[in-house]
Amino acid sequence: MNPSLARRLAAEGVGTALLLATVIGSGIMGERLSGGNVAIALLANAVATGCGLAVLVAIFAPVSGAHFNPLVSIALASRGRMQWREAFAFVLVQFLAAVCGVIAAHLMFGEPMLSWGSKARAGPAQAWSEFVATFGLLVVVWACIERKLSAAPALIGAYICAAYWFTSSTSFANPAVAVARCLSDTFAGIRPADVPAFAAAQSLGAAAATIFSAWLWLPFRNPG
Amino acid sequence: MNPSLARRLAAEGVGTALLLATVIGSGIMGERLSGGNVAIALLANAVATGCGLAVLVAIFAPVSGAHFNPLVSIALASRGRMQWREAFAFVLVQFLAAVCGVIAAHLMFGEPMLSWGSKARAGPAQAWSEFVATFGLLVVVWACIERKLSAAPALIGAYICAAYWFTSSTSFANPAVAVARCLSDTFAGIRPADVPAFAAAQSLGAAAATIFSAWLWLPFRNPG
Amino acid sequence: MNPSLARRLAAEGVGTALLLATVIGSGIMGERLSGGNVAIALLANAVATGCGLAVLVAIFAPVSGAHFNPLVSIALASRGRMQWREAFAFVLVQFLAAVCGVIAAHLMFGEPMLSWGSKARAGPAQAWSEFVATFGLLVVVWACIERKLSAAPALIGAYICAAYWFTSSTSFANPAVAVARCLSDTFAGIRPADVPAFAAAQSLGAAAATIFSAWLWLPFRNPG
Amino acid sequence: MNPSLARRLAAEGVGTALLLATVIGSGIMGERLSGGNVAIALLANAVATGCGLAVLVAIFAPVSGAHFNPLVSIALASRGRMQWREAFAFVLVQFLAAVCGVIAAHLMFGEPMLSWGSKARAGPAQAWSEFVATFGLLVVVWACIERKLSAAPALIGAYICAAYWFTSSTSFANPAVAVARCLSDTFAGIRPADVPAFAAAQSLGAAAATIFSAWLWLPFRNPG
Repeated sequence: MNPSLARRLAAEGVGTALLLATVIGSGIMGERLSGGNVAIALLANAVATGCGLAVLVAIFAPVSGAHFNPLVSIALASRGRMQWREAFAFVLVQFLAAVCGVIAAHLMFGEPMLSWGSKARAGPAQAWSEFVATFGLLVVVWACIERKLSAAPALIGAYICAAYWFTSSTSFANPAVAVARCLSDTFAGIRPADVPAFAAAQSLGAAAATIFSAWLWLPFRNPG
Repeated sequence: MNPSLARRLAAEGVGTALLLATVIGSGIMGERLSGGNVAIALLANAVATGCGLAVLVAIFAPVSGAHFNPLVSIALASRGRMQWREAFAFVLVQFLAAVCGVIAAHLMFGEPMLSWGSKARAGPAQAWSEFVATFGLLVVVWACIERKLSAAPALIGAYICAAYWFTSSTSFANPAVAVARCLSDTFAGIRPADVPAFAAAQSLGAAAATIFSAWLWLPFRNPG
Repeated sequence: MNPSLARRLAAEGVGTALLLATVIGSGIMGERLSGGNVAIALLANAVATGCGLAVLVAIFAPVSGAHFNPLVSIALASRGRMQWREAFAFVLVQFLAAVCGVIAAHLMFGEPMLSWGSKARAGPAQAWSEFVATFGLLVVVWACIERKLSAAPALIGAYICAAYWFTSSTSFANPAVAVARCLSDTFAGIRPADVPAFAAAQSLGAAAATIFSAWLWLPFRNPG
Repeated sequence: MNPSLARRLAAEGVGTALLLATVIGSGIMGERLSGGNVAIALLANAVATGCGLAVLVAIFAPVSGAHFNPLVSIALASRGRMQWREAFAFVLVQFLAAVCGVIAAHLMFGEPMLSWGSKARAGPAQAWSEFVATFGLLVVVWACIERKLSAAPALIGAYICAAYWFTSSTSFANPAVAVARCLSDTFAGIRPADVPAFAAAQSLGAAAATIFSAWLWLPFRNPG
């Protein structure tokens, strides 16, 4: 039960593409139907993303681990849980698949295949939001890995559903997602100019969570 | 614990009828109460359908597998997991029961027993939506089967809840559901003329998912 | 681990009272905050009831079985799974506790302790709704019992959340709940004159589900 | 697998801070986006809090028990399940971390670091609401402990999601949360003057639940 690298990359690719199709597609649907009430649009967007992400993690985790996020692959490699060479392949596929997912969503709603995002998401409050969101996500991911939690898919989906609401940035928490969403001039879009700060804040949050988790779970790995 | 064909068909029939009653009934209720805000109606429709579908899969799966969808039965038969003769009986019952479910819902809301749907759902964006929705559904179903996932009911319910939102067609993903919904001039209805394109796109999506899944899960079936 | 009758009745009583407090309380809160949009009020009511019911079933089932519903206790007694004498004690406690729950909710919102419901819920569509809702509920309950499903609490909560939406009656499916709700002139209330038809339709639905389930699950009880 | 006190306090601290960040942050987001419809804001607030709390309990319970609530720590100590000295350390950390979580949320939304709450939450209906809410919470917590329920995280999250709606106080049920929320002049805030009555009602509810649960679960601890 050691799937080939091709199968693992396919799982990462199909999973990441369907994740972005869910994020972008449910955002468009929410905006079109909600008659200007942004809270209803975001509620639909958050519920759809949380449900979709949980499902994708559940079905693809046995093949590839279901990272769908460059920071997860890099965090695992940094702690020796994954070879760096494979992590780079994962990251490359995640970025490409995320863009494919955006295209798939745009075609489902009759939008142009790709378009530059125009929604401003900038400033220290948003950067701090992305730091907190990604710190929390990686704390959850590391707990799932260290304790081999069978509820991991539901936990990751529920976390993102909550994080859409408790951050002013709506919690991208994923550089591949941020880059892909800057190619969509829709509800879930972001200006390209705002992506670097998001990615930097996300990387710092992931690093902090990885250091904290390494310390927290140390006695569980070496009991006695 | 090998239930008779009569019991298996009864499980498929009662399950499919209750599924359609949930889809149609919650659509009518949502439209009547939401004061014209379609997003709220669809949110209620999606939550009710996701919860109801998860419950129906959980309770009927031990008897019949809880397909409720001709494409699932045909996909299983195509991969030798079910006899073709039984699959045809399943499909026949699914179509008949879906219509019974529509009638049950209409009577719960004081509507005529059956009425031709009038909601236009046409064009390439909707067809592509149905392809993606059914591809995703069958990828989930095959993962649940191949990995014998005990969370299968929750995963299938959560997937459909998300798919209502990330597709412009609200994700029928099921030819029996499409045919039954063309007999309802309510929120969840569809024009009869639009059903063939939906069924064709759904069939292609199911076929693509079955081929992809056969390749993806091959090493898990023949480990070593 | 055979709890005394006093403890079992206490579990039924506290559970049923908290269930009614949840139904009535979240109905009042929903109506007060939703600015006249009934769909939003019902969505909050359904989510709160589904979550609350699932929790109450999970924590009290080890003690009393967590029926909270006269029709469940009577159905179990009719199939020899419970002594009739105990079933009558359960039913009596369920009715009394349901009224206590209504009072508790009214006091939480500064309403009079009890008040006659004024919301009309009558006619064949509503009666048929209660038949279908209770048939579905008992089919779920019997499946949980016969297959000893560990997900039973989540399934029952999710079923009721869906049934609030797919029936025109918002799915009381429980005579103790119907009687208690006729003592509340709030969102979740019902006119006393409408209760007998509700209770009759519920009883027929429960009987039909019990007969169907006895047949469906027969081979699983006597395998081989 | 006996984590050090430092790790246990870190788990309580990070968990409580993230819980408050979720409560306050999703309240601000809900209020900003909902266009004055308080029901939609509270629905988002409840879903985000329920999801977030479930996740935090799941990941930190193996380390510290995931109390995040002084009344839980004190209840455990009162029944000999925890040393009083450790309980006091837990309580201290919970209060400090709750305030840190408020600051973190305020910074995510560009609000002043701390501000006195101005939302009036007073009177007997609100006090009775807090009694019922905390009674229910501790009944759930004790059932999870006594029966070692693996679904504990989901049950606690679902309970709080429901309790936001069935109480007029929106169910603080936690003195550390009440104190922290009086430092936030936002959707989830509370006037400082109203906190003592909340804390008193919460303490009585927790005591009643602890006494009831000790009696209810007695035969399960000493079977035979």
